[in-house]
Amino acid sequence: MAKKFLGIHIIAELHGCDPVLLDDEKYITDILLQAAKDTKVTVVDYVTRKFDPQGVSVVIIVSESHIAIHTWPELRYAALDFYTCGEEDPESAVREVAEKLGTKDFVLFRAERGNVRKIRNINSKIKEIGDADKRSEQIQILL
Amino acid sequence: MAKKFLGIHIIAELHGCDPVLLDDEKYITDILLQAAKDTKVTVVDYVTRKFDPQGVSVVIIVSESHIAIHTWPELRYAALDFYTCGEEDPESAVREVAEKLGTKDFVLFRAERGNVRKIRNINSKIKEIGDADKRSEQIQILL
Repeated sequence: MAKKFLGIHIIAELHGCDPVLLDDEKYITDILLQAAKDTKVTVVDYVTRKFDPQGVSVVIIVSESHIAIHTWPELRYAALDFYTCGEEDPESAVREVAEKLGTKDFVLFRAERGNVRKIRNINSKIKEIGDADKRSEQIQILL
Repeated sequence: MAKKFLGIHIIAELHGCDPVLLDDEKYITDILLQAAKDTKVTVVDYVTRKFDPQGVSVVIIVSESHIAIHTWPELRYAALDFYTCGEEDPESAVREVAEKLGTKDFVLFRAERGNVRKIRNINSKIKEIGDADKRSEQIQILL
């Protein structure tokens, strides 16, 4: 059966992580590259950045889209994105990354990207729950 | 007033774009770098990729998070993400990129990232509209 969308984008909000791990550029790079491997995506290139006094960003471009993390050790928080158009669902790899960062509390959002029909579906659902500020082409999703 | 979240992540689904522009790696890189400039974010590095037979990926890491686009010229579709923890709201820059790609129909999702309280709010809203497949820590957002 043909897929009805082009890619799965998992948007993960990771709270209560280990602050030492969140500040470890090499560790974070390694676990994301492992997540890429586990999801059988092809790494094209990646960029890492250690911020002063703290925080790390790692963005990996894969043939199938991208993986990105930005960390705030002082808040024990990390924002993780894993977007892939490959065959493997990235959710278990995202959960593995959360686990490896000692995450206590996390929320995953799954977005099926490249699917007009479903955009229209969620639009009607949002309309039903009444979002006053919504413009016709825009949905406010407040995380 | 202190911000209640760490960053704005705009997730844009661009449909009906100009297929020639969607396949032009340099053009797409230029308009994204301009979007970064317009939003006053600091470009750390970027990676671009031209796929065979078609399609382009550009991922820009900025000090304030990242900007990414993946294009499907054959479907006149592009998936655009602009996530920034900077002061400037990226929405107008995202709309400018959509315009420059000749986008006929687009949807923008705004996610305020790093805000636990709002995560819990949207959780209750989603519960009200009844998402049977939802697990306690996960929301299915069907684009």
